[in-house]
Amino acid sequence: MSQAVIKDNEVDIVIGALHPDLTAFMNEWRPIFSRFHLIIVKDPDLKEQLKIPEGFSVDVYEKADIERAVGSSSSIRFSGYSCRYFGFLVSRKKYVVCIDDDCVPAKDNAGFLVDAVAQHVTNLQTPATPFFFNTLYDPFRKGADFVRGYPFSLREGVTCALSCGLWLNLADLDAPTQALKPAQRNLRYVDAVLTVPARALVPVSGINIAFNREAIGPAIGPALRLSGEGKFRWETAEDIWCGMCVKVICDHLGLGVKSGLPYVWRTERGDAVESLKKEWEGVKLMEDVVPFFQSLKLPQSATTAEDCVVEMAKTVKEQLGKVDPMFSQAAEAMVDWVTLWKTVASSSSS
Amino acid sequence: MSQAVIKDNEVDIVIGALHPDLTAFMNEWRPIFSRFHLIIVKDPDLKEQLKIPEGFSVDVYEKADIERAVGSSSSIRFSGYSCRYFGFLVSRKKYVVCIDDDCVPAKDNAGFLVDAVAQHVTNLQTPATPFFFNTLYDPFRKGADFVRGYPFSLREGVTCALSCGLWLNLADLDAPTQALKPAQRNLRYVDAVLTVPARALVPVSGINIAFNREAIGPAIGPALRLSGEGKFRWETAEDIWCGMCVKVICDHLGLGVKSGLPYVWRTERGDAVESLKKEWEGVKLMEDVVPFFQSLKLPQSATTAEDCVVEMAKTVKEQLGKVDPMFSQAAEAMVDWVTLWKTVASSSSS
Repeated sequence: MSQAVIKDNEVDIVIGALHPDLTAFMNEWRPIFSRFHLIIVKDPDLKEQLKIPEGFSVDVYEKADIERAVGSSSSIRFSGYSCRYFGFLVSRKKYVVCIDDDCVPAKDNAGFLVDAVAQHVTNLQTPATPFFFNTLYDPFRKGADFVRGYPFSLREGVTCALSCGLWLNLADLDAPTQALKPAQRNLRYVDAVLTVPARALVPVSGINIAFNREAIGPAIGPALRLSGEGKFRWETAEDIWCGMCVKVICDHLGLGVKSGLPYVWRTERGDAVESLKKEWEGVKLMEDVVPFFQSLKLPQSATTAEDCVVEMAKTVKEQLGKVDPMFSQAAEAMVDWVTLWKTVASSSSS
Repeated sequence: MSQAVIKDNEVDIVIGALHPDLTAFMNEWRPIFSRFHLIIVKDPDLKEQLKIPEGFSVDVYEKADIERAVGSSSSIRFSGYSCRYFGFLVSRKKYVVCIDDDCVPAKDNAGFLVDAVAQHVTNLQTPATPFFFNTLYDPFRKGADFVRGYPFSLREGVTCALSCGLWLNLADLDAPTQALKPAQRNLRYVDAVLTVPARALVPVSGINIAFNREAIGPAIGPALRLSGEGKFRWETAEDIWCGMCVKVICDHLGLGVKSGLPYVWRTERGDAVESLKKEWEGVKLMEDVVPFFQSLKLPQSATTAEDCVVEMAKTVKEQLGKVDPMFSQAAEAMVDWVTLWKTVASSSSS
């Protein structure tokens, strides 16, 4: 089946800048990023001035821009890795691709540079198949197809809303696992994309993702913040929380989530043992969060991503709010995010 | 994490012989099969004498052996691809590996021969993780682990009951797809094993599978037979039906199903256009079968594979029996299979 045609004007690349000097990062990505519009959002906690090399079409947003747009909301915070959500908010494109600033392009098994943007957009432009598992992975890939026994009525598939890419070198492990296996590197390039089946939950990592902003944008916002959240991925859980929300919403709305290609090469380093002091919090959270999302049912009246987030926030507050005030804050941020999303959308269209 | 230790006396290789001359097949598999006990079941429709090369520990079962064991049951038929089920019945081993007689060992991306038996047994001996999706595939594989966000309480996993391998060269397509794309070959070796999530259905192909006979054996029997069933895989649906039953039962009993490695190289050929006359039947069936299995709930009182099959057969008869008498026959065969399984088990232990 055919590969996707990628239009430059349908894609924004959003980069959350947690490091001031983006020179090496941007130069590594130049062959892939340079044809697209970039949105760089500077972590409001970052004091130094950003260094961005020449030759890109780029809009930069800093603390003052964020404060102007967000106004008085105290629940939504864009510091640390959450700064990228501001880029999702101000984008006007159909597809958003977002890659952490400590990742560089990976190479495939044949040694060729992986075009992560092209692969993400292909994942989003070809259908997802969440209602039945295809053993030969993505049936829409060149050379692949549906296997015997796959119902014909399900072969048309559904819109893919979220594409979750993977990581070579440093995998996205939690702090305890990373601390236990400091030398472990992920070196297996698995040449596959698959749809995560409906009703299966998945730990969505924010390191290397893309999504259909029109379909699911309002559901991808900053909500859960750990009290001791830091500047390493393993000290955060905002993306994991957001991913659980998005997956449940996609299942409800009949949209798909894919996982697999593209890979990026991840170079982040840090002291995982030091991070353990903070990250146990995120690890413990999942024991309450997963059963909650596994049993969550959204009402039939919720027919848009906005509706779903608001309904979900209510249930989060009611059920998880009792467990930890962090969840009540997350619920509040979810509602405020939808309001903010609508405000920004209406102001940009007028 | 550690790789499995494979004991020769825990594994039976079961081969359904649909072709009389197994010389080339067995010689190709010699480096992999020769340390294990083999059970070869000759398709009762096959008139010619089997040719089996020297140097294997093998028991051969033919039409007379089958008739002696099965006795008067008219619902269970072991002809064609279904002959292999007789091998599952008479095996006394913990693990059964079953590969079609038109497949030879595949090579991996580095050009090394794939030991399909070792990979299947590893899949069965390491836990499955059906209750949460791990984006880096099998977390128990060397060099892999659970990714950030994976709940610690689910990391122990569950027993893997079924391992579904894949196919290089000729993929397991249905007759219409094969007829439409006669030149298509599957050449992508995807170096991964994953657990099919709970509640996701999957088209299990019987070409290259292994299972834990102690855990799930009674659920792997011959049940659905197409009226125009032939001697090509794409003219059959017995394995697809059986796979749907097994997946629902595994979900109910808290067991896992894995898909992915090992690959075999599939050489079967035939005239798919000619087969279309028969195979449309199998293709159409799935439209009724899939929603049925998706909504099927087994009672809590069913705590063994035997119980589950009997309960499932009741519902098949009630709900699908109205659609087509083929389903009523399948239900009858399922009940008879459980009875037969118990009889053979008790006669061999006494």
